[in-house]
Amino acid sequence: MNIPYTKLNKEQLIKERENVEAEYNRYKDMNLNLDMSRGKPSKEQLDISVGIMDAVNSSSDYVSGVDVRNYGLPAGIPEAKKLMADMLDVGTDEVIVSGNSSLNIMFDLVSTAMIKGIMGHTPWCKLDKVKFLCPVPGYDRHFGVTEYFGIEMINVPMTANGPDMDIVEKYVNNDESVKGIWCVPKYSNPQGITYSDETVRRMAALKPAAKDFRIFWDNAYCIHHIYEDVQDKLLPILPECKKNGNGDMVYILGSTSKVTFAGGGISAVGASKYNIADIMKRITIQTIGHDKINQLRHVRYFKDIDGMNRHMMKHAELVRPKFTLVLDILDEELGGLDIAEWIKPNGGYFISFDAMEGCAKKIVALAKDAGVVLTGAGSTFPYKKDPKDSNIRIAPTFPSMEELETAARLFVICVKLASLDKLIEMA
Amino acid sequence: MNIPYTKLNKEQLIKERENVEAEYNRYKDMNLNLDMSRGKPSKEQLDISVGIMDAVNSSSDYVSGVDVRNYGLPAGIPEAKKLMADMLDVGTDEVIVSGNSSLNIMFDLVSTAMIKGIMGHTPWCKLDKVKFLCPVPGYDRHFGVTEYFGIEMINVPMTANGPDMDIVEKYVNNDESVKGIWCVPKYSNPQGITYSDETVRRMAALKPAAKDFRIFWDNAYCIHHIYEDVQDKLLPILPECKKNGNGDMVYILGSTSKVTFAGGGISAVGASKYNIADIMKRITIQTIGHDKINQLRHVRYFKDIDGMNRHMMKHAELVRPKFTLVLDILDEELGGLDIAEWIKPNGGYFISFDAMEGCAKKIVALAKDAGVVLTGAGSTFPYKKDPKDSNIRIAPTFPSMEELETAARLFVICVKLASLDKLIEMA
Repeated sequence: MNIPYTKLNKEQLIKERENVEAEYNRYKDMNLNLDMSRGKPSKEQLDISVGIMDAVNSSSDYVSGVDVRNYGLPAGIPEAKKLMADMLDVGTDEVIVSGNSSLNIMFDLVSTAMIKGIMGHTPWCKLDKVKFLCPVPGYDRHFGVTEYFGIEMINVPMTANGPDMDIVEKYVNNDESVKGIWCVPKYSNPQGITYSDETVRRMAALKPAAKDFRIFWDNAYCIHHIYEDVQDKLLPILPECKKNGNGDMVYILGSTSKVTFAGGGISAVGASKYNIADIMKRITIQTIGHDKINQLRHVRYFKDIDGMNRHMMKHAELVRPKFTLVLDILDEELGGLDIAEWIKPNGGYFISFDAMEGCAKKIVALAKDAGVVLTGAGSTFPYKKDPKDSNIRIAPTFPSMEELETAARLFVICVKLASLDKLIEMA
Repeated sequence: MNIPYTKLNKEQLIKERENVEAEYNRYKDMNLNLDMSRGKPSKEQLDISVGIMDAVNSSSDYVSGVDVRNYGLPAGIPEAKKLMADMLDVGTDEVIVSGNSSLNIMFDLVSTAMIKGIMGHTPWCKLDKVKFLCPVPGYDRHFGVTEYFGIEMINVPMTANGPDMDIVEKYVNNDESVKGIWCVPKYSNPQGITYSDETVRRMAALKPAAKDFRIFWDNAYCIHHIYEDVQDKLLPILPECKKNGNGDMVYILGSTSKVTFAGGGISAVGASKYNIADIMKRITIQTIGHDKINQLRHVRYFKDIDGMNRHMMKHAELVRPKFTLVLDILDEELGGLDIAEWIKPNGGYFISFDAMEGCAKKIVALAKDAGVVLTGAGSTFPYKKDPKDSNIRIAPTFPSMEELETAARLFVICVKLASLDKLIEMA
């Protein structure tokens, strides 16, 4: 059982710091070169999907609605629409299957809203002010898109049940310049939180001041469980929105980037038929169609959503030990020290770690100096500004178990060191 | 030898019309259902590339710079950059390999110019007026993009050597609101004209009034020859631009959509390093990267540009008889009648046909009534408005030889019928 650092006097803190620093220097001497920064699948995970490389080959028939090797079907082939609609909990007439990147779909949705407007509403670029709500901590690339387009981002704190809905309702229902909210509703990035049914219902029952307000429901980790027996369930949002007469209020996004291949999968947007028609007006100008061969590859390989869900259990087997390893080291080394908090997720790609205020940047810098790259401190917040300088996103999937253990052990040493410095200063 | 219709008197015209109408009705009775409307490869052409389906399979190694199955390399894998740079006549540091659609690249370039501006210049959406020059006849989807963004399109007549450069120079060098020009410089759509060296040199030597003027050099048919022995050559534009201090003035586009699979290929943009850096600023926000597996598939299959050029000769063998068939029927049936002109191209996907003024819509309608779909009259012009109602784009590649012969024979009958109506009215 660790004694809380907060109970130590200055002398004890200094003594402990000497021990920890000695350990830190031992790691530094190893000349490590490890990366825990991005949510990338490991080589072993990529190998799970290797069969997809043969799912369409030179002896296949290439027909799904049309010859997929030729132009046509800009909203996707019928079988892929069915698969992705099932993944996103929407109807087959409520989905567009796109290229390899759901981030690209989101970028294009925001870009179109900026320059053409949504469903005939005023293009956002013609308005004095456009704001997005950003549950924090959140996904850096979401914030990157809104920052790119000059959209003002407003932090909304996350709770154990999702974004603080009192704050969301206050903004959305009263401020006409609030045009969107970024959500990762299941196994959120980085905290692994799944929105509660009540959160989803309150989200779906919003009464936006802006008629063209949209929820960007990035269901990136919808089937990305860590366990076979303990799995979060997310209430499908589109039916809830419809019940409230808000059928057009949500864009639902997803991809197979972390199901099959990162950047080599297929992506989709689910939304009401009216939204789909509105989006297709742009897509039919923008492209003659997305890569239907890769769509066919995916449906031939998985057959259906059950096949995809079974496939995800293979990923779970590979990522589970990595999450367990890191969480065990955090428990063992930092448990009871009263200097940090973290969440044990049931799915997704990250462990969200909160250090003492003002310590995150220092921890990341210490780790970097010892050869371990972590996601930049602050990057889980809009403008890369964590007001408390506290949150660090740990991405355990990519490194090998051995590398991961080394990186995690160094990480806790860095946390201790930075915390001790702060406590000594305060003592 | 046909007697020119223009030499016939009214009585003769009426008599001829009766004969032609009888022939037309004979075709109408066949209940045809044929399509000569779009530049689509035939099934046989798609079958040429079937080996690419196996070029990356479950026993491949997946490394080109990185494991192509994972995130990374948003500008493309090194081998694909080399291949596409060679195709577009640019350096390997002057290219971004993208997804499956060069149209999408062009759309995104215009979209970015509209909302963010090019290289720090004022976003076009903030200007009172933005204009593009459109050599006509041209590619309907180019005009669709500029129309979508509310950009004013100005017709520039094509000559046998490319766009009328006197007019291009007058506009570009004097009118600051002219921000771009759409060009298909080799085997142009629809005429199959390749810009002469002088045209390329004058294009590269433009002195644009607008500092952010860009040539959209859509080299869609750069290697799409019809013959092995007679091939057009296009002067590479980027070196010419550099000679004139205009290195940043051109975006060069291309794809393998009509090399491998339509919508299942890879696409690229070539441009100066400064343009590439400017474009990457957007791409790194827009996506984590394009489909690198398909990039690898293409480079493993072709090895290099020589391999791709050899591959194109297989396409030539399949499309050549189709072009010959249509051209022979045009010659045989319409040659010397003095009612139409057309161009025999050395490459590309189309035959551009000019009927007597005011006859194109009627010809397309007559063909449609008899079950043959042609590209809509007017669609080769901005706003689908052909001022002379004369140009029709014939796309011979997709139908079978048998279908094509029927369609072409019906087509010439429709041309005769519409022309006779006009001549009778004038007589």
